[in-house]
Amino acid sequence: DSGALKQVARILNGGLSPSDIAHLLESSPPRQRVLLWKLVDKQLEGEVLQYMSDDIRADFLSEFNAQELANLLEDFESDDLADLLQQLPDTVIQEVLDTMDEQDRQRVEEVLSYPEDTAGGLMNTDTVTVRPDISIDVVLRYLRRHRTLPPMTDSLIVVSRRDEFIGVLPITRMLVSNPAATVREVMDTDIEPIPVSLSDTKVATLFERYDLISAPVVDENNRLLGRITIDDVVDVIREDADHSLMSMAGLDEDEDTFAPVLKTTRRRAVWLGVNVFTAFTSASVIGMFEETIQQVVALAVLMPIVASMGGIAGSQTLTLMIRGMAVGQVSNASVRWLLNREFLATALNGVLFALVVSAATMVWFGDKTIGLVIALALVINLTVASVVGTLLPLTLKRLKIDPALAGGVILLTTTDVVGFLSFLGLATYFYA
Amino acid sequence: DSGALKQVARILNGGLSPSDIAHLLESSPPRQRVLLWKLVDKQLEGEVLQYMSDDIRADFLSEFNAQELANLLEDFESDDLADLLQQLPDTVIQEVLDTMDEQDRQRVEEVLSYPEDTAGGLMNTDTVTVRPDISIDVVLRYLRRHRTLPPMTDSLIVVSRRDEFIGVLPITRMLVSNPAATVREVMDTDIEPIPVSLSDTKVATLFERYDLISAPVVDENNRLLGRITIDDVVDVIREDADHSLMSMAGLDEDEDTFAPVLKTTRRRAVWLGVNVFTAFTSASVIGMFEETIQQVVALAVLMPIVASMGGIAGSQTLTLMIRGMAVGQVSNASVRWLLNREFLATALNGVLFALVVSAATMVWFGDKTIGLVIALALVINLTVASVVGTLLPLTLKRLKIDPALAGGVILLTTTDVVGFLSFLGLATYFYA
Repeated sequence: DSGALKQVARILNGGLSPSDIAHLLESSPPRQRVLLWKLVDKQLEGEVLQYMSDDIRADFLSEFNAQELANLLEDFESDDLADLLQQLPDTVIQEVLDTMDEQDRQRVEEVLSYPEDTAGGLMNTDTVTVRPDISIDVVLRYLRRHRTLPPMTDSLIVVSRRDEFIGVLPITRMLVSNPAATVREVMDTDIEPIPVSLSDTKVATLFERYDLISAPVVDENNRLLGRITIDDVVDVIREDADHSLMSMAGLDEDEDTFAPVLKTTRRRAVWLGVNVFTAFTSASVIGMFEETIQQVVALAVLMPIVASMGGIAGSQTLTLMIRGMAVGQVSNASVRWLLNREFLATALNGVLFALVVSAATMVWFGDKTIGLVIALALVINLTVASVVGTLLPLTLKRLKIDPALAGGVILLTTTDVVGFLSFLGLATYFYA
Repeated sequence: DSGALKQVARILNGGLSPSDIAHLLESSPPRQRVLLWKLVDKQLEGEVLQYMSDDIRADFLSEFNAQELANLLEDFESDDLADLLQQLPDTVIQEVLDTMDEQDRQRVEEVLSYPEDTAGGLMNTDTVTVRPDISIDVVLRYLRRHRTLPPMTDSLIVVSRRDEFIGVLPITRMLVSNPAATVREVMDTDIEPIPVSLSDTKVATLFERYDLISAPVVDENNRLLGRITIDDVVDVIREDADHSLMSMAGLDEDEDTFAPVLKTTRRRAVWLGVNVFTAFTSASVIGMFEETIQQVVALAVLMPIVASMGGIAGSQTLTLMIRGMAVGQVSNASVRWLLNREFLATALNGVLFALVVSAATMVWFGDKTIGLVIALALVINLTVASVVGTLLPLTLKRLKIDPALAGGVILLTTTDVVGFLSFLGLATYFYA
């Protein structure tokens, strides 16, 4: 009913900020999402798109033609522009560039030259710069000639005549300074500018560690290229953290919560396919011991206990390592200590739970041999799990494989195989 | 050797920022950590402690006496103070309060009155306030009387004579305004102040959504109490994200990567203990079918495949739901859609992988019945997994149980039980 729709449109465009609209769209199933998007004011579309996650934005972008895209992109900040263009096919990018005027095209081409996950991909070019030799009073008068200052401007950047970075002039410090003092006397020079090729994760660490709001970005000749602001860094922090969580379930951190059935089915199938392979690996290990199982069926009943306890212990070690590596706490110097600690802690728990499980098993089946076998197998599987859980993520990282994505699968396959092999192997030996 | 130690001390206190020192301590095994801490300058200790994670800080704090604590805490910002005091036993807090002067004590007591995980617990009281009727020129002269402004001051807060919140005056806007204009003409009034009791997660959402650097906090009568700054919000975002990841392995997000052996053993034992219980539950399900297994040993070989495929499919649904709930995308209105989508996507994959697994099984064992049984069991287990994975986190949240902590265990127990029950149950039926 069109009356109700008009009302929704009024609320959408009048009462909500572009980021609220983006959040509402992201929180809506596909059909409502398309409907709501149609109600968004044309002038707001660009801003709303800037706040959307990559996966969802790509869907909407595919419906624009080159001319529409070019119009849309005119108001974008350079980092958002880069972000967005990198999602489009090369042919579309070329078309968009062709419809732009010379100045816009140059800006876009420069931005596209930096990889998305570096300081260059995060930065904006909207810096306010001053020279070191002028007085604060002159700076204040210069600023007053602006209609607005760029968002998140907490400091002006002091540069030489050749645009080389010299220091920063925090606005709060300027406000409490003598207006007659020069910029040089007031500015901060112990701030290290960010190299344009630094990874976005490292940029985030710098912002977190030094409580920055914005930071200057320079090229290899110390020439100022732009600045990075905390709002974009917060997105990096959120994405990095989401990445570990989602990857461990074989999901992408950009995954649309409301992706349609077929898209979801296709993406999940990959991970289930990997698991079919690993599950058959474990099954084939069990298959080696069919005779023993036929002889002592209790083994079939108990073997998942050995596998799952190893899986739990190993996952704890793995998760701790992945978190520690993500926040930069794990170095080569500390790996030996960590391996030692994980081994000892898990071995202690291994012995403890070997006793508990073994006692419960002997009571259940009235068989001392099976109690001994499960105790030994548990200690073996848990200690192997601790070693694999510690070293696997480091090895994967060295091989440039994402530990959060591949670590869990490999670890659980290992604890399944080692669990079944040690339990059924020992049983075959003791019952033979 | 004391020469080397002196050199380390010089680097530590001269070359590194307090946050760098904190990171270095957090990245060191216990013995080195204690050694390094002894080398930190007394005057830096307070600041270094502010940058440490709770778990590690608590260790160091336990070595201070009340008088030392009181001296240490004098320079703390109110939010860090609250954070830190909340880790001390009540008797120690009382002792610390007793050694403080009246003014400090009042500040501490006020701060302690707000729960740690609310806006009140996050805020600082170091606001710079102005009245609406004065001119920008007067504001600039008033600011110049300060020696410094509080860190992260991106705006002044406009209040009435009774300290009621009226609006904010962004400093960047003030700098481009006519000095003769009044605060009222320049200020921003469409900013909603943050209620003191709002949860820290919701505060973080507001900061992310509106790209805030700082925001005013008010009581229920709209009276200004303090302000929250982005650096503390970034910590909340990081902790919330870490929480989901770490909880799913039964770990605490504050877990010290370098916790000593016994502490680690004790903490992990709890989670392994939970798993012993759930593993015996699954084992007892298998135990119900001992006779069938004796008859067809291939069942023992294949049953882990059914359980693990269900576990993988369910974990994907669960992780997606937990992430969606954490970022506020999942509402009651969308649950039905999500349930529907998860059910359909998982059922489709269930059928696909039932065919694959069933074919492989028939080739392996040359038995059509077992192929049929595993296909049916897979479809049952995967569809149950999708329903449980969707509804479980919502149910747990309603029961005020942390879905990230309990969700995985309950889900995997379910998929094990349903997997074994359906596979062995159907086998018993078909082979009987």
